[in-house]
Amino acid sequence: MSNSGWQEIATKKQAERDALLPSKWRLDMSKYQSRNNLLTVPIDCGILSDKQIDITSNYDAVDLIARMRDGTFSVEEVVTAFCARAAIAQQLTNCLTEIFFDEAIERARQLDHEKATNPDKPLPKLFGLPISLKDSFMVPGTDATIGFICFANDKSTKYSVLCEMLLEQGAVFYCKTAIPQTLMTADSDNNVFGRCLNPHNTSLTAGGSSGGEGALIAMRGSVVGIGTDIAGSIRIPAHCNGTYGFKPSARVVSLQGKRSPGRAGLVGVEPVAGPLATSARANALIMQVILEAELWKRDSMLNHIFWRGLTLPNRPLKIGVVEDDGQNTPTPPMRRMMRDVSQKLMNAGVELIPLKLTEVDKAMDLLWFSFSMDGMKVSPLSLCIVYDIHPSQDTVDYINQSGEPMVNSVRQTGLVALPAKSIHEILDFTVARIGTQEKYRDMWLSNGLDALIMPPAPFTAPKIDTWGGLAAYTALWNLMDYPAAIVPIGQVNPDDRVDEAAKYGAKDAKVYNRYSGPEQFADAPTTIQVVGMKQEDEYLALVVEKLDAILKSR
Amino acid sequence: MSNSGWQEIATKKQAERDALLPSKWRLDMSKYQSRNNLLTVPIDCGILSDKQIDITSNYDAVDLIARMRDGTFSVEEVVTAFCARAAIAQQLTNCLTEIFFDEAIERARQLDHEKATNPDKPLPKLFGLPISLKDSFMVPGTDATIGFICFANDKSTKYSVLCEMLLEQGAVFYCKTAIPQTLMTADSDNNVFGRCLNPHNTSLTAGGSSGGEGALIAMRGSVVGIGTDIAGSIRIPAHCNGTYGFKPSARVVSLQGKRSPGRAGLVGVEPVAGPLATSARANALIMQVILEAELWKRDSMLNHIFWRGLTLPNRPLKIGVVEDDGQNTPTPPMRRMMRDVSQKLMNAGVELIPLKLTEVDKAMDLLWFSFSMDGMKVSPLSLCIVYDIHPSQDTVDYINQSGEPMVNSVRQTGLVALPAKSIHEILDFTVARIGTQEKYRDMWLSNGLDALIMPPAPFTAPKIDTWGGLAAYTALWNLMDYPAAIVPIGQVNPDDRVDEAAKYGAKDAKVYNRYSGPEQFADAPTTIQVVGMKQEDEYLALVVEKLDAILKSR
Repeated sequence: MSNSGWQEIATKKQAERDALLPSKWRLDMSKYQSRNNLLTVPIDCGILSDKQIDITSNYDAVDLIARMRDGTFSVEEVVTAFCARAAIAQQLTNCLTEIFFDEAIERARQLDHEKATNPDKPLPKLFGLPISLKDSFMVPGTDATIGFICFANDKSTKYSVLCEMLLEQGAVFYCKTAIPQTLMTADSDNNVFGRCLNPHNTSLTAGGSSGGEGALIAMRGSVVGIGTDIAGSIRIPAHCNGTYGFKPSARVVSLQGKRSPGRAGLVGVEPVAGPLATSARANALIMQVILEAELWKRDSMLNHIFWRGLTLPNRPLKIGVVEDDGQNTPTPPMRRMMRDVSQKLMNAGVELIPLKLTEVDKAMDLLWFSFSMDGMKVSPLSLCIVYDIHPSQDTVDYINQSGEPMVNSVRQTGLVALPAKSIHEILDFTVARIGTQEKYRDMWLSNGLDALIMPPAPFTAPKIDTWGGLAAYTALWNLMDYPAAIVPIGQVNPDDRVDEAAKYGAKDAKVYNRYSGPEQFADAPTTIQVVGMKQEDEYLALVVEKLDAILKSR
Repeated sequence: MSNSGWQEIATKKQAERDALLPSKWRLDMSKYQSRNNLLTVPIDCGILSDKQIDITSNYDAVDLIARMRDGTFSVEEVVTAFCARAAIAQQLTNCLTEIFFDEAIERARQLDHEKATNPDKPLPKLFGLPISLKDSFMVPGTDATIGFICFANDKSTKYSVLCEMLLEQGAVFYCKTAIPQTLMTADSDNNVFGRCLNPHNTSLTAGGSSGGEGALIAMRGSVVGIGTDIAGSIRIPAHCNGTYGFKPSARVVSLQGKRSPGRAGLVGVEPVAGPLATSARANALIMQVILEAELWKRDSMLNHIFWRGLTLPNRPLKIGVVEDDGQNTPTPPMRRMMRDVSQKLMNAGVELIPLKLTEVDKAMDLLWFSFSMDGMKVSPLSLCIVYDIHPSQDTVDYINQSGEPMVNSVRQTGLVALPAKSIHEILDFTVARIGTQEKYRDMWLSNGLDALIMPPAPFTAPKIDTWGGLAAYTALWNLMDYPAAIVPIGQVNPDDRVDEAAKYGAKDAKVYNRYSGPEQFADAPTTIQVVGMKQEDEYLALVVEKLDAILKSR
């Protein structure tokens, strides 16, 4: 395909998407060109009715379901309000890839009709809830390009297993959300749709790979969406956009029938699907609904992990506190956030246990090994030094099929070209991974932890295309296979002055010094990461709700 | 090492073991040379007291624990009785590899003393229970040769994780049991200790790889032992020796700190540890104790699968009935057993659903692929065509280190030499395995099965060294990762006349026609295999207890 070929496809694809924005929801974009913070536009722009502003601004997923159940709001009202606000968010941040508002509103009417017709029939757990989906999930009649030109105009024919179940539980899908080319960077930029912007500050990255979810939820164009995470792809955009996020343990939530950028069957560190939302309890609800659905009945890769109806122990929680990963010093706003959080938790009687992480270097080596098992296809020089390519089933092949170039963030991830691994290297990796997991489990149990808190990154959302491959803060927990959540705390404030406090040498200082002060990073959210024990996702959800309640109290 | 070198090691090792048999428990072996069925010797030989005969003959593990708790028997009485009976079994069948009766009796006295001293202290769940261990488990101060000369005189320094927990729960270890060289055949024969015999009929195999457990439990030298299974190694000896056996799902029971014949870190079909016993409820108890111990706190490879306190539904059970694997026709005693079992279950109101297994050929190809992932080291011609050997970490290296020859059954397993697999072949394997698992899960759910019954093999225990690599009946469930149990039913009887009913062609007929009539196979046990859903080990244990109660009732 010629160079112009891929551009034509992209132009056409974007035009088709944009045509699905009803004219009544179109903004006069000239008004907003000079604004960095776009969060209030949905309220100020005059498109939404007061009721739509109320519906989209003042309720989380749990509240909305309750109000649709009791008839305070109709499903149609709720779904239409979120479609409208998502349309606004899309024009401002480019957070959507696929739009199916008409189908969503039609389904909403049907749900209202069924409820009116059968008032005694029990309503499903997610009755009427609008849920946004990361682009990689399949919805019949829409694309799942995952940021590759080669997958444009390849309409899905059935729902991903997770989506199918959410639908059965009464969810309403209305849009899919932006991702990076390859799904393997923290900047949601690709040649099909372009870049997704961070609505807090458009000079900063929206994060990735579930960047569209982060931006859309920050704009309250959605109260809950489904992302995926193999190194931080739920947590990084939740952090950048100041939303709640929940990365489950592996093989707990079904990934079946989802588009993947890599080979099927990979052993090692595995991707997981999980929610981003405007509240901790919304994520807990989604996890509960998923676990209660026993999706192992539809996806034999899953473990038989059940929602057990746990409660928190009747004693102060024991929370490990990790300041940093021993490689990158948190910047001033992140350090201040950690101090404030620790203080609040301590004041509330939570027992805090300072912890240092061990073997982070080794863990990251193992992670990159895992990602390059079948031959690393992304080179830092944009040269495709590919060893042992498996035909048409890897990232570089997907890029090459259309002749599209690599986007900046893919080029800058710093991955080196590596040969495919031998069975003995893979077995050594497995053994080493287990060894590291044993050490972390020992740390966990010997300290009697209920959870552990740490920053999700050494920085707030950085300037676009500067995240690079720095993922230890989040990816460590993918290697360990521990569930991990994001709780938004605050944002950069004028006290977060530049300093020279980088502790870990020149490499650290280089990243650290990119923080150029509160003006440059104005309104960037600060968040904490809360980590739980492997496959104790339910318990983590409980702990997160509790910590969040403490942190949100005055 | 010279050829005589390995023989010297074996002679010395056996002499050391034999020296641990107290003279008071020694048989006049000349009396038993002509007997094929050795089961009654412990009762007739005059070594055991009446009380010892009672203790070892008339109680299962659950009963024994109850009687040690309530003081009917002291732990010392029970442990001494089983040591004595195990000593007799050893002389007749060569079922033991390591003997530590003195330490066991000392520990028994200690448990009695502690109980007497602290009568109000709650007793552990397995208080005083003698448990035998397959040779591969580690007990400090003893070898774990797993049938390789090279591991003789390499004393373990700590307990395997599972053993450590069983000890904490009050178990008493007193011996380890026979296995085949490599652990990968169904004949427990090796150059260190020689062959373990089947006490029902010494011309038949004792099965493998947990053959010593099968023979020892059949002799009632143990009421419960721990084996392992990657293709049938718990179920085959349970079948050959007419004991109960329980193969759990993978990553439910800890294998940590156990000697393995293969490389650590292998992906694909995984070995599992589980009990063999004289009753279904003993296996259920062991599984409950294991799951309640939450061994993921000591072994990070385990899934967080809990004992949930399930009960059976209040409706007739739905049981799939599989006549054969579509490759090998069950011989007359096995067909009769299946008819009898089906009739009894039907009479008891169990709903039986005839099922045919799909893709058995493909499943077996996948299984052998999995076993040869790192290069298959066992050739049918006894030629070690080894590709890509990983130094000192595989079966052939273990054999070559001492210069010992391969035993017959290893030579006859029919494994072909294969090159180590590439990452892409491994990923294809993983994908194909999941595809097969999906089909079996669909079969399971669409029929609403509570369990499935089928023969554990097309034959009863065959003549020694004739099992070969025929393992589809059991190994299928390792590939699926479904738990599977063995329930003893009866034995070959005079009506089981030779016929020519092989259905599946010449290869089938060759195996089928090895059944040469009820005299040749006199007293060979018949058993059924009961299969459960992946990771629903607890539910399977309940179903097995229920079916067993029906089958044992008049």
